[in-house]
Amino acid sequence: MTYLGLFALQHRGEEAAGICSSNGDHLFLEKDMGLVGEVFTEARIANLKGSHAIGHTRYSTTGSSSRINAQPYCVDYSRGQVAIAHNGNLVNAQVLRAELEAYGSIFGSTTDSEIFIHLMAKPNYRTVEESVVESVSRVEGAFSVVMLSEKQLFAIRDPHGFRPLCLGRLGNGYVVASETCAFDLTGAEYLREIEPGEVLVIDDKGLRSFYPFKDQNKPRAHCIFEHVYFARPDSTVFGDNVAAARERMGRNLAKEHPAEADLVIPVPDSGNFAAAGYAHESGILLGHGFTRNHYIGRTFISPSESSRSIKVKIKLNPIREMIEGKRVVVVDDSIVRGNTARSRVALLRRAGAKEVHMRISCPPHLSPCYYGIDFPSKEELLACKMSLEEIKKFLDVDSLGYLSVEGMLAAASRGKSDYCAACFTGKYPTPIFDDVNKFKLEQKRC
Amino acid sequence: MTYLGLFALQHRGEEAAGICSSNGDHLFLEKDMGLVGEVFTEARIANLKGSHAIGHTRYSTTGSSSRINAQPYCVDYSRGQVAIAHNGNLVNAQVLRAELEAYGSIFGSTTDSEIFIHLMAKPNYRTVEESVVESVSRVEGAFSVVMLSEKQLFAIRDPHGFRPLCLGRLGNGYVVASETCAFDLTGAEYLREIEPGEVLVIDDKGLRSFYPFKDQNKPRAHCIFEHVYFARPDSTVFGDNVAAARERMGRNLAKEHPAEADLVIPVPDSGNFAAAGYAHESGILLGHGFTRNHYIGRTFISPSESSRSIKVKIKLNPIREMIEGKRVVVVDDSIVRGNTARSRVALLRRAGAKEVHMRISCPPHLSPCYYGIDFPSKEELLACKMSLEEIKKFLDVDSLGYLSVEGMLAAASRGKSDYCAACFTGKYPTPIFDDVNKFKLEQKRC
Amino acid sequence: MTYLGLFALQHRGEEAAGICSSNGDHLFLEKDMGLVGEVFTEARIANLKGSHAIGHTRYSTTGSSSRINAQPYCVDYSRGQVAIAHNGNLVNAQVLRAELEAYGSIFGSTTDSEIFIHLMAKPNYRTVEESVVESVSRVEGAFSVVMLSEKQLFAIRDPHGFRPLCLGRLGNGYVVASETCAFDLTGAEYLREIEPGEVLVIDDKGLRSFYPFKDQNKPRAHCIFEHVYFARPDSTVFGDNVAAARERMGRNLAKEHPAEADLVIPVPDSGNFAAAGYAHESGILLGHGFTRNHYIGRTFISPSESSRSIKVKIKLNPIREMIEGKRVVVVDDSIVRGNTARSRVALLRRAGAKEVHMRISCPPHLSPCYYGIDFPSKEELLACKMSLEEIKKFLDVDSLGYLSVEGMLAAASRGKSDYCAACFTGKYPTPIFDDVNKFKLEQKRC
Amino acid sequence: MTYLGLFALQHRGEEAAGICSSNGDHLFLEKDMGLVGEVFTEARIANLKGSHAIGHTRYSTTGSSSRINAQPYCVDYSRGQVAIAHNGNLVNAQVLRAELEAYGSIFGSTTDSEIFIHLMAKPNYRTVEESVVESVSRVEGAFSVVMLSEKQLFAIRDPHGFRPLCLGRLGNGYVVASETCAFDLTGAEYLREIEPGEVLVIDDKGLRSFYPFKDQNKPRAHCIFEHVYFARPDSTVFGDNVAAARERMGRNLAKEHPAEADLVIPVPDSGNFAAAGYAHESGILLGHGFTRNHYIGRTFISPSESSRSIKVKIKLNPIREMIEGKRVVVVDDSIVRGNTARSRVALLRRAGAKEVHMRISCPPHLSPCYYGIDFPSKEELLACKMSLEEIKKFLDVDSLGYLSVEGMLAAASRGKSDYCAACFTGKYPTPIFDDVNKFKLEQKRC
Repeated sequence: MTYLGLFALQHRGEEAAGICSSNGDHLFLEKDMGLVGEVFTEARIANLKGSHAIGHTRYSTTGSSSRINAQPYCVDYSRGQVAIAHNGNLVNAQVLRAELEAYGSIFGSTTDSEIFIHLMAKPNYRTVEESVVESVSRVEGAFSVVMLSEKQLFAIRDPHGFRPLCLGRLGNGYVVASETCAFDLTGAEYLREIEPGEVLVIDDKGLRSFYPFKDQNKPRAHCIFEHVYFARPDSTVFGDNVAAARERMGRNLAKEHPAEADLVIPVPDSGNFAAAGYAHESGILLGHGFTRNHYIGRTFISPSESSRSIKVKIKLNPIREMIEGKRVVVVDDSIVRGNTARSRVALLRRAGAKEVHMRISCPPHLSPCYYGIDFPSKEELLACKMSLEEIKKFLDVDSLGYLSVEGMLAAASRGKSDYCAACFTGKYPTPIFDDVNKFKLEQKRC
Repeated sequence: MTYLGLFALQHRGEEAAGICSSNGDHLFLEKDMGLVGEVFTEARIANLKGSHAIGHTRYSTTGSSSRINAQPYCVDYSRGQVAIAHNGNLVNAQVLRAELEAYGSIFGSTTDSEIFIHLMAKPNYRTVEESVVESVSRVEGAFSVVMLSEKQLFAIRDPHGFRPLCLGRLGNGYVVASETCAFDLTGAEYLREIEPGEVLVIDDKGLRSFYPFKDQNKPRAHCIFEHVYFARPDSTVFGDNVAAARERMGRNLAKEHPAEADLVIPVPDSGNFAAAGYAHESGILLGHGFTRNHYIGRTFISPSESSRSIKVKIKLNPIREMIEGKRVVVVDDSIVRGNTARSRVALLRRAGAKEVHMRISCPPHLSPCYYGIDFPSKEELLACKMSLEEIKKFLDVDSLGYLSVEGMLAAASRGKSDYCAACFTGKYPTPIFDDVNKFKLEQKRC
Repeated sequence: MTYLGLFALQHRGEEAAGICSSNGDHLFLEKDMGLVGEVFTEARIANLKGSHAIGHTRYSTTGSSSRINAQPYCVDYSRGQVAIAHNGNLVNAQVLRAELEAYGSIFGSTTDSEIFIHLMAKPNYRTVEESVVESVSRVEGAFSVVMLSEKQLFAIRDPHGFRPLCLGRLGNGYVVASETCAFDLTGAEYLREIEPGEVLVIDDKGLRSFYPFKDQNKPRAHCIFEHVYFARPDSTVFGDNVAAARERMGRNLAKEHPAEADLVIPVPDSGNFAAAGYAHESGILLGHGFTRNHYIGRTFISPSESSRSIKVKIKLNPIREMIEGKRVVVVDDSIVRGNTARSRVALLRRAGAKEVHMRISCPPHLSPCYYGIDFPSKEELLACKMSLEEIKKFLDVDSLGYLSVEGMLAAASRGKSDYCAACFTGKYPTPIFDDVNKFKLEQKRC
Repeated sequence: MTYLGLFALQHRGEEAAGICSSNGDHLFLEKDMGLVGEVFTEARIANLKGSHAIGHTRYSTTGSSSRINAQPYCVDYSRGQVAIAHNGNLVNAQVLRAELEAYGSIFGSTTDSEIFIHLMAKPNYRTVEESVVESVSRVEGAFSVVMLSEKQLFAIRDPHGFRPLCLGRLGNGYVVASETCAFDLTGAEYLREIEPGEVLVIDDKGLRSFYPFKDQNKPRAHCIFEHVYFARPDSTVFGDNVAAARERMGRNLAKEHPAEADLVIPVPDSGNFAAAGYAHESGILLGHGFTRNHYIGRTFISPSESSRSIKVKIKLNPIREMIEGKRVVVVDDSIVRGNTARSRVALLRRAGAKEVHMRISCPPHLSPCYYGIDFPSKEELLACKMSLEEIKKFLDVDSLGYLSVEGMLAAASRGKSDYCAACFTGKYPTPIFDDVNKFKLEQKRC
């Protein structure tokens, strides 16, 4: 079941995969670099004894991408064994790590996730639950976490609710997953989100919740980029279906940036739903302008220095007959560095497009994310380097339209103050410690 | 370049991949089971010396799928070395093989492709070109073939033109490929198709053509299923862009089988263009109803006997918010056994579809293909086992519409007599020898 | 150099191999299950930047044999990074681990070696050197340890000197290794042993030693089984060349247990030197009675339940022409469970040996080793289950002679009180804590 | 059983391994580059259905070392399927291949072994047996061959008997192997050699023999180098036990080249038996002077250009304590290029040897072998480049003694005219065709 769930959540991390199971007495761990389908063989799945398990697909934001940082991270400590799988980023990792090391902790990985377990291992607590609740209170930042001990499973979400985490029921049991698409695959029934700030304990006695941040009035800060790009369209996160939110973004984009054109085409598959919304709102025909090559994986050997543009072309080839002589609206979810977008426009022009109107279903990216999305540095972000007019020229498009922050947030159903849009606005919902980047950059490789 | 071309043509065969190159004196061969990206490492590419090469991606229709049958198939014979890569199927393979063996030939593979080389090796011919021309005259069936000797490259197409084969120019050189999408990737310029019945020789002296079947008035028989499903949408085959042909099929489908519905959704990606055509013709909104999981490859380990339906679900998950309460037209390219289609309808119903109208952009499959497409046996073909009404019930759809043979052929721009639609009509454009299946079935594994 | 050294020391551990290097700022680690030649590729060696390194080949005595327990074990802590490689076993591991966990330590492996680092990480110490010295004072048992920090290398040996550890000079630098055979390979010059109880620091300033156990009068307890079996014949350990010690054991064995025989043959290669000693002392001809198959590794697939005897036979096949009709003295280093010895005698009888006289160059094994050799449990030790007469019958030999404890110790040049022979005598040179086996057995797999 | 046999015969070829089995209707083949233990997994062995099989370990003498030349070589032809495994080299391969190609044969490998099957495939024969007998009559050179068809096994040996091939009984069945050591392992009973010139058929009806060369009076020419080096000591080949023959060579060597010395040491393991013979004859003490590292396989990564001498050292390290101050006789089986021998003498000197007397248990190698042993070219053979005195100087030995041709042949029990010693004498027992080297050198890689 956990293996199936990881397949459904593979898009959240393609770097490493792991599962830790418990038979009630011991934990069993299998993890490695690679995709879920590469890491897990029948033999490795057979090693994972017992009937409870947690899994993880890693997308590295802190720590290096070596095997040592694959999760779940599993240790022995005074109360037995415990394994952790963490989505998100802590903002006070550096502070906590320094403190823990000062008191004698040794770190076996370079991820911030290990901090949770060191905090729990402190001798101050009477029960595991108390240790979890107290430890969680110390960390700051984004964390959707599952932990497994021999007999209990914990599901924890930071008080801001940066990353999704939801609860489902499967037969007599419960399942927890970042996105509901994992429930669809395993046949589980969606119950509710883990609440921001909730520590949920699942064991033989059923469900029990703790709310360590109850009185702190921490603002909600759901990552709007989950809706724009990160989450899977068939998932429901923060109460909204992702595909529907994207369609609404596309509609809002059409209202904000209409175009005189013959055809709306998405950049597949990331722009599919926003393009449909744009087309439906504008009344312009929706079509397909690119063929996507699904075979191009990480194994591709670039024949020469021109590899970057060949990689763009091998992945998405424009279909001349669909485009030639047409005024085309190309809809994509976002522009980061701009090189890929630029190569694609060139391909469309070479395929005979009369006009190219680019529409982006989110605002320009201007600021780093400290909560779990790995954008390039400011120096590399296109919108930090150029004005809109310059970007238009750089991309060689006839017109360019980014969805506004308001238009984007209006596409989600909660009040706009409930979302984090810091990567667009620079307004961070938590304090950002001076050394937050230091932790990111100085992680040593071991 | 050949490696790039194979990436573009990976969809034509996922079972094995190989490249044979020549440095003017010797041939160099690398091939193995697996996808192009799995077979070729930098070291293996470096082994392929020289500046001429042919490549192949294998989709097994005859012969077993073992490594021995991977192509190019390369041998030493009286004139030196020669390698062959073949797309298609011979219909007189059994006859020729028996004859060749009777005269002392030994076969190292179980593919019909090896027959070409044995015929060429006969001592009767004065030149390689003569040997190619005479050998090609003996075989019957579908063959788009490239051959490489130390100093020459041959491109050969059967007189019916069953499978595509086209010629491009790249700098001062020439490239030959099954589909034009390989040209787009390598930057080659499309020149023309290899003519049905043409034997094209490329060497230092340039291009030279022979027409061994000139006076035989063999009818053209382009495989219409290349347009329906097999070829890539961005390719031009038999003079038509595939995506455009599929859109026209979708339009014809809408005319033949209209529906009262709220939304047209494709089965991605095979139904994408036909769905667009259907939507544009009918005026019904075009949307996305499924999320496709691109990670599900051949590595997936099915957890139990329910694996088939889980594989369907893991690959395409319906998006409830797009479908719930709606009357949906689902457009796919074809139904073969029917199990996958049935599972998908069930998923749509569970996701809340009010009505499901299935539209298929080709007629029902009723007959085997002897020319290179590997359909299941008649016993397994859904349309051979059930009436239309029974299929409707089996699939649990509110309405079902297959495109007619006429509607399908009208979507391609040549006269309808130029196409082979035998898998729908049972009318084979060549004699079918009694033992054609014997060859297919009795191939021994070695 | 470290890689070469590991090749020379492969016999000390065939289960896992690893190297950790330092470039002065960071540590770099590569380790995995398998032999040195399997674990290290050119790419992995290239990853190991810098000019200082430690390595390890693992032979599991505590902890499970999973990848998590491969060494060097490398962590981040308050003073930076540190890696440890440990030969030997602690006898108070369970006590220390419980204490460390009680104060909040979390354990990432199940080896006792990790305890050293947790002790060092305690906040009580002013310098790394102090932390090492103080930590070492807490542990009890057998430990020949090397540790690497960014700028220093530590070589540590327990006060009893159970396991060997020696110092060499290579150019301007120093090397430390378990056995001198590693020096021969790398071209280093042997300087001296690391003294029992010595903590040697090697850094830019040169060599510096600390003696934390100076005043404790701990008795020397060199493992005599290193001479009997474990160390390589070309090494010098505890001041004696191993091959020469084995020859003396063979001579003493001939004096204690003479035989009327035609030929002395060793069980190759473990009995080679003792057999030579026996032959030279007795004047009986030395010959070769077995062919050793060097290809039989861990990859051998046993065809059936009779696999054990086939494995014996595939490894050593008797040569009929050397043995037939002869009275043979077979010399081996030891008998543990007895099954292999029994199979070999049967092979010799079938090959026509007239008489088989077995001579063993050490006394019967009667007690467990807590210091780093992994003997089977008492229940499995042949000499614990049978009298000498019964063993003779079980093995089906005409006579049987074990070297006496005195004869064995007399073959080494130090006073007999300087050696540990506990596996033969049951007299342990350290206290044995009640839970020493508990640690061994209850190590959880993670 | 075949897998076990290959393990026993691994020393005859370390490059590739394969097994072909028959279930009475079809052949099943598994082969690949690598050692037996690397090539065969449980899954691959399970693929080999049926109860008859042949196997091969490849040592490349003709043809390149690519996978295409791994054996058994298996094909389809007019009479069904047939697989061949061949030890030895043909001397008229080039002639036959040219003739076969001229009549239309195509070659899938670059080994001479494929020629047998092409000859058999000629349409001239009424039965398989006739085809085998007639084909064998055409080839000239060294061939110990096994062939497998669906229902028959053939064992064939050239009329000179260059390579060994013997017959055993196992239960109700028969086994054929190059050396008797394979019988020991599988529990088979040795019956007799396949006679030189015999074609033995094994099938349901039992054994049947044909003697195609009966009237040709071909001289026996058993390869004496099998006794010197190639065969395993526990095997009986050409009627003599190999170990015993080697001991006699050592004795003869002591008679021909006595030495004043303190110790006789073998180069392990190749010199073991000759050293014992030398010691027993001379009365000088037999000892061990080197430690052999069994872990050094093909995986070793040489750290630098000094790799060759490190490889010598890593494989065999001298033991100073055994050698220092002594006059040592070093016995090895042969010297080819001389570099390894030279490095070993240097190691012995560095280890303190007072005098080094080298004794070689065969004469100097002067001529190429065309019958299946892959010596380097004349340009690389030490004895072709230097006089004895120069070799002595080059190796830096105090004395040097090669066994004479007479002394070598006297150690085997057949008359000296029954052996081939062409690599020492240049007297070839077959005609050597002009192009025999051409075939060897011009084999094209494909």
